[in-house]
Amino acid sequence: MTEVHTGASMSLDGFIAGPGETGFEHLFKWYGSGDVEVPTAHPEQTFRMSADSAEHIRALIDRTGALIVGRRLFDMTNAWGGEHPMGLPVVVVTHEIPDGWPREGSPFTFVTDGIESAVERAKALAGDKVVGANGGTIARQCLDAGLLNEIWVDLVPVLLGGGTPFFEQIKNAPAVLEGPLSVVQGIDVTHLRFRVRRP
Amino acid sequence: MTEVHTGASMSLDGFIAGPGETGFEHLFKWYGSGDVEVPTAHPEQTFRMSADSAEHIRALIDRTGALIVGRRLFDMTNAWGGEHPMGLPVVVVTHEIPDGWPREGSPFTFVTDGIESAVERAKALAGDKVVGANGGTIARQCLDAGLLNEIWVDLVPVLLGGGTPFFEQIKNAPAVLEGPLSVVQGIDVTHLRFRVRRP
Repeated sequence: MTEVHTGASMSLDGFIAGPGETGFEHLFKWYGSGDVEVPTAHPEQTFRMSADSAEHIRALIDRTGALIVGRRLFDMTNAWGGEHPMGLPVVVVTHEIPDGWPREGSPFTFVTDGIESAVERAKALAGDKVVGANGGTIARQCLDAGLLNEIWVDLVPVLLGGGTPFFEQIKNAPAVLEGPLSVVQGIDVTHLRFRVRRP
Repeated sequence: MTEVHTGASMSLDGFIAGPGETGFEHLFKWYGSGDVEVPTAHPEQTFRMSADSAEHIRALIDRTGALIVGRRLFDMTNAWGGEHPMGLPVVVVTHEIPDGWPREGSPFTFVTDGIESAVERAKALAGDKVVGANGGTIARQCLDAGLLNEIWVDLVPVLLGGGTPFFEQIKNAPAVLEGPLSVVQGIDVTHLRFRVRRP
């Protein structure tokens, strides 16, 4: 069965963005903390990270077949200029399809009838790979719906003191996890992989 | 110079207690997840944890010379029945000295003039060892005052969804850390040690 995983860079105090959308220079520092190149779907954007982080992220990219993101991130990034850096099909969860979308030949699909429908759609797009759900609201909705299988945390040594939690207001707390199944130490980051225990 | 370290069991989403003082069966599960005995100052209370966690916690106990806790924990635990499980002198930060205290021959000292005074007092008691500051309010006050050197996180694979953060409302966010200096994998816990970067 196609699995749903979520992953994000998270501060030690649990935030994927600081207060007022700040702190990204800390959260994403590890993307530039080494000399091993990791290309993206955008030719002008290449990450240069530690060898261990590069191996970790390449494996993650290889195993992922489709993404689910929220409308807010889609808008904030201006649709990533037309293509997600991971070069994957993206399902956007939204109340209303944005003006001018969908576009012919674009990797973005819009789902307006909730998270379960979005997951179903993304699974179909992912083929035999996993679905990657964005951290924050989308990951929380997947967790609440019992649809989340793994949580990949890129733990960053900083305290942001507030902002957007990785998991906000989850419904069925406490959610017991298994792991970490793996611990990979990069530079400026520790990659931890957890499995959601089925009730 | 005597250092100040803080440590606590923390959920993956950053809480040292769940909503309404719940979740401790998850946060402290690792204290009973193995068969290596770690005795406490209370003869009737012995932990049985994994060998790796036991080695980690014994080293932590060995290096600690005095503790700082808040009045709330002192009250909640009823002064730990008269002695802290670690068998160490304890400085209690409080607005008013509680009725019936201090007591002759007791390990508890009360400081009513703030965190800096409490740290000074604890350092004198710690001798050539480190001061252990309790997670939550006390750790945050030490961090805000620039008096905190290390953060030891016992990371527990659970999402509590709310409660008491390890670091709440820190003043000078973001606080950049170094590390983890060490990663020790126990059963039901990952021990991570971070250093606070001096401004």
